[in-house]
Amino acid sequence: MFYGAGVTLIPWPVPEPQLAQATHPVLADAARAAAAAYREARRLHTRPQLAEELAMGADGTPTMRVDSIVEDAIAESAQRHGVNLLSEEAGFVDCGSATTLVIDPLDGSSNAASGVPLSCFAGVLARDSIATEALTVWLDTGRSWWARAGQSTPYRTSGRTTLDGAAVCLLRPKPHARDEWLRVADRAGRLRILGTTCLESVLVAEGSVDAFADPGSDTLRIVDLAAAMVTVPAAGGAVVDARGRTLEFDPDLTRRWSGIAAATPRLADEVAETVLG
Amino acid sequence: MFYGAGVTLIPWPVPEPQLAQATHPVLADAARAAAAAYREARRLHTRPQLAEELAMGADGTPTMRVDSIVEDAIAESAQRHGVNLLSEEAGFVDCGSATTLVIDPLDGSSNAASGVPLSCFAGVLARDSIATEALTVWLDTGRSWWARAGQSTPYRTSGRTTLDGAAVCLLRPKPHARDEWLRVADRAGRLRILGTTCLESVLVAEGSVDAFADPGSDTLRIVDLAAAMVTVPAAGGAVVDARGRTLEFDPDLTRRWSGIAAATPRLADEVAETVLG
Repeated sequence: MFYGAGVTLIPWPVPEPQLAQATHPVLADAARAAAAAYREARRLHTRPQLAEELAMGADGTPTMRVDSIVEDAIAESAQRHGVNLLSEEAGFVDCGSATTLVIDPLDGSSNAASGVPLSCFAGVLARDSIATEALTVWLDTGRSWWARAGQSTPYRTSGRTTLDGAAVCLLRPKPHARDEWLRVADRAGRLRILGTTCLESVLVAEGSVDAFADPGSDTLRIVDLAAAMVTVPAAGGAVVDARGRTLEFDPDLTRRWSGIAAATPRLADEVAETVLG
Repeated sequence: MFYGAGVTLIPWPVPEPQLAQATHPVLADAARAAAAAYREARRLHTRPQLAEELAMGADGTPTMRVDSIVEDAIAESAQRHGVNLLSEEAGFVDCGSATTLVIDPLDGSSNAASGVPLSCFAGVLARDSIATEALTVWLDTGRSWWARAGQSTPYRTSGRTTLDGAAVCLLRPKPHARDEWLRVADRAGRLRILGTTCLESVLVAEGSVDAFADPGSDTLRIVDLAAAMVTVPAAGGAVVDARGRTLEFDPDLTRRWSGIAAATPRLADEVAETVLG
C-alpha cells in the first residue's frame, strides 16, 4: 500500500504579509485575512481536500475548497469595513458604499491546493469605480507589491521594448489558441508558466520578467488583471488586451480577456501583434 | 530617459538555508556557502551584471557572473573539506579523496540573474562513485529537501500512475523536439515551466506536482539530475531518461539526457512512452 502526498498536509508555513505602511487599512486587512485563512486551510486540509470542488463561482469556473475558505475570510473583512466586494467566486456584493474591493482571493488556486508555492492575494481599492491603489501578496513568502494609481512605484519594469529574446511568462497553451501561443513562445528568449497571473504580473512590474500574457485564449477575468492594471503602469509598463478590447471593472465576471502585462507600451503592442499574427 | 530594473539591485533577501540536522557537514557547508555567495552577488550586482557571460563552462554552456560567484564559493568549501568536486562550470576537480560532491551550484541561473525567485542549490555526496545523500535548497526561501540514498523520506510523492490529467512541469519547448513537448503538454491536467529542474524535481518528491520532464530535447546534464536521482526514489518516485539511457555520474559534463522525474515508476514510463510517440 502506497501512502502518497494525498494523505499528508502541505508542510510549508504561510508567513504574515509584509505590507507597505501606506497600504489602505481595508486592503491591508483583506490581505491579512486571506493569509490567515490560507494558513489555516493548509493546517486542516490535505491536498485533495483543498482541491475539492464545492460549487460553481460567479466567474463560471468551479470553486475549490481552498478558494472558498480564503474568499469567505476576505468577504468578512470587507463586511467589517462596510465596503462593497467584487470577487471571483461571490461576484458583486453591494453594501451601498462608494468604496469597492476588487479581489482575486487566491490567484494560482491550483498551485495553492497542490502545494506549489506560487499563489497570491491580489486586490484593488476603487472609489466610485475608479481604482485608487493595488496590493499583491505572494502568500507563500509574504512578499508584497503595493502601488497607488498614477503614482510612480520604487520598483520599475525592465524597460524592454522588443519581444525577440525577452523573458516572457505565459498561460499554458490551450487547444483553441495553440498557434498564437507558439508564435509568442518562439520569439521569447526565456519562457515560464508559473500558473499565477498576479505574481507573474508583479514580476513584470519589478523588472524580473519582461512580459506576461494570455496569448489569445481569452481566459482572464477582470479580477485576474485588476491589480496589474494599477501596478504595472505605475512601474513604467502597460496592461492591454491582445484584441484591443477595453479592460474595465464589470460585475459580470463571465467576461474574459487575453490580458498582456509588459515592461513598456511598445512591448505590450508587439506581444499583441504577435498573438494576432 | 527611462531608468528600468536594469540599474537596480534585486531587493529580496536570501535567507539562511534551513537544513535537516542529519545533513553531512560537507554538503551542509556547500549549501551555506552557496546561499551566502548568492546573497552577496545580489547585494553587489544589478540584473545585467549578474547575467553577464564571463566564460564557457565545462558543460559547454556559457557561465554567467552569478553562476561563477556561487560555484567559486562552493569550490572553496569543498577544498576546505578535502573532497573532490564535480560541478557545472568547473567540471571535475580531483583531490584524490574517496568522497565527491556532485553539484549544480545555481540551478535556475536565468531566474537567479533576473530576479525570478526560483533558483536552487542542489548537491549529492558520493563515496567511491556511489551517491549516499542529496540536498536541494530553494535559495530564495531557504527551504530544503534532504534524502539519504535508499532510505524513505518523510515527504512522499503523489503516488500518481497516469499522465492524463497529471500536474506536470516541463522544460520550455525546443524547436528540435516540439512535437514531443506538445504530446506531453496535451495530456497534462496542469502545466508549469518554472525554469529550475532541481526545484521542479523536489516538488515531485514532496507530491506537489506529479512529474517533471525534459520531453526529448536532451538538455539535462548529470548535475541537473543528480539530486533528483537520490531524492525522488527515496520519496516513492522514479527518475529515468526518456530514451532509456542509463543515468550515470560521469565527469564528462557535455553528456546530455532527457530526464524524467515522476511520482511512480509507472508514470515515469508513461511520460517516456509519450515523449517517444
